[in-house]
Amino acid sequence: EITQHAIELITEQEQLPQTQPKALHGKRIVITAGPTREAIDPVRYLSNESSGKMGYALAQAALNAGAQVTLISGPTQLLPPAGATVTHVISALEMHAASLEAAKDADIFIGAAAVADFRPSQYAAQKIKKGTEQHMHIALTKNPDIIADVAKLTPRPWLVGFAAETRDLIGYATQKLQRKKLDMIIANDVSDKNIGFNSDSNAVTVLSQKAQSTEVSSITLAVDTKDKIAEQLLKVIAKASQNEPLISTSL
Amino acid sequence: EITQHAIELITEQEQLPQTQPKALHGKRIVITAGPTREAIDPVRYLSNESSGKMGYALAQAALNAGAQVTLISGPTQLLPPAGATVTHVISALEMHAASLEAAKDADIFIGAAAVADFRPSQYAAQKIKKGTEQHMHIALTKNPDIIADVAKLTPRPWLVGFAAETRDLIGYATQKLQRKKLDMIIANDVSDKNIGFNSDSNAVTVLSQKAQSTEVSSITLAVDTKDKIAEQLLKVIAKASQNEPLISTSL
Repeated sequence: EITQHAIELITEQEQLPQTQPKALHGKRIVITAGPTREAIDPVRYLSNESSGKMGYALAQAALNAGAQVTLISGPTQLLPPAGATVTHVISALEMHAASLEAAKDADIFIGAAAVADFRPSQYAAQKIKKGTEQHMHIALTKNPDIIADVAKLTPRPWLVGFAAETRDLIGYATQKLQRKKLDMIIANDVSDKNIGFNSDSNAVTVLSQKAQSTEVSSITLAVDTKDKIAEQLLKVIAKASQNEPLISTSL
Repeated sequence: EITQHAIELITEQEQLPQTQPKALHGKRIVITAGPTREAIDPVRYLSNESSGKMGYALAQAALNAGAQVTLISGPTQLLPPAGATVTHVISALEMHAASLEAAKDADIFIGAAAVADFRPSQYAAQKIKKGTEQHMHIALTKNPDIIADVAKLTPRPWLVGFAAETRDLIGYATQKLQRKKLDMIIANDVSDKNIGFNSDSNAVTVLSQKAQSTEVSSITLAVDTKDKIAEQLLKVIAKASQNEPLISTSL
């Protein structure tokens, strides 16, 4: 009898993929990941702290949930998940171009990259020689806002942004959600080195706002590995993008 | 008879470590490697293209040649060679402090790191929020010159520098050799992507100048893996630092 029960359990588990359709089956998801590098000359650049781990974990979780995934990645040391279409970029301008192109055909766009806000106004084709001066300055020009430009597309994908902050996390994240007209923002506190850019774990607060509404709902995912957080985030994104309330999500 | 000869050959090879002392046996060698990162705020930084591969390969080659190796490394994704004493640093100021401390007891100092010439004059403890402005600038202050400061120590280690240039390689390298009072400089052309910062291979020209002499001698090592180039460089460094002429080196 025990054996019979065990066989039934195994059979149930094996049937799971067939009986329960994957949450994002057939959805086209574009995910940006990693930092960008803004070249000053052939050897010097500006960049951001970002390992790309969160974006790559989201890409893997989206593949697991049945989605078609395009990963647009800045320079990282990570191996892209098998099955994703990957576009490698270096600068914010390159990431902007690749993102707008890919977003045209996307159902969901997740901007997980740490894009440089500014780039050097001039690029020196030869290495700049230092002289005897003790001070210098670099003039910077603002980069285009990738996710805000994706939000202007018609039709536009369902839009998820990230807010990496060192203080007033929820305040800044709520402003960013509304100003950039995102559907959802994932806020994380990068001042905590245990859950920050280069760590393997994370803890996030998810804020979302329905179109034609000013009500912001939120849900907090506790400290866990980036892989687990990514899996939970994809569940939340799958539900919210299909207009199901966050509160009923089975986390 | 053939078997007997083979056994003799094997025996000879096995005896090699005992019969021929290692070129750098007991020498204390300090090697800097990788880039430095100069923080603007908790998430933004200035850095240089450098994988650290050349410095790490030199550390391994120095260990193989019998040296006691201290590796002072900026942020890289590399695994340090077993047997080296490793100090991890982020900024040029940290690398400067660690280098001067380690160089006091060193026989040979090899500056292979791509140290940032300048750092942001101010560090913002909180992430700088971008406003609506389209332009901004970062004020920079010159970093101390690590290898020039090591050259001022009494007694000073035998000093090897690197010149990574995109044009007029030999001209700039010769100037740097003489201005910084180095014993040797290893010049490589980083405009060639096949032998540059992040590639696995390299080709270099070695320039050296004896104390109390204005004569610069040079030797060129052809394109090879960074491991092979490192092995050859350590042979050149071992000979030159013991006042043997470069010309007689068995490369």
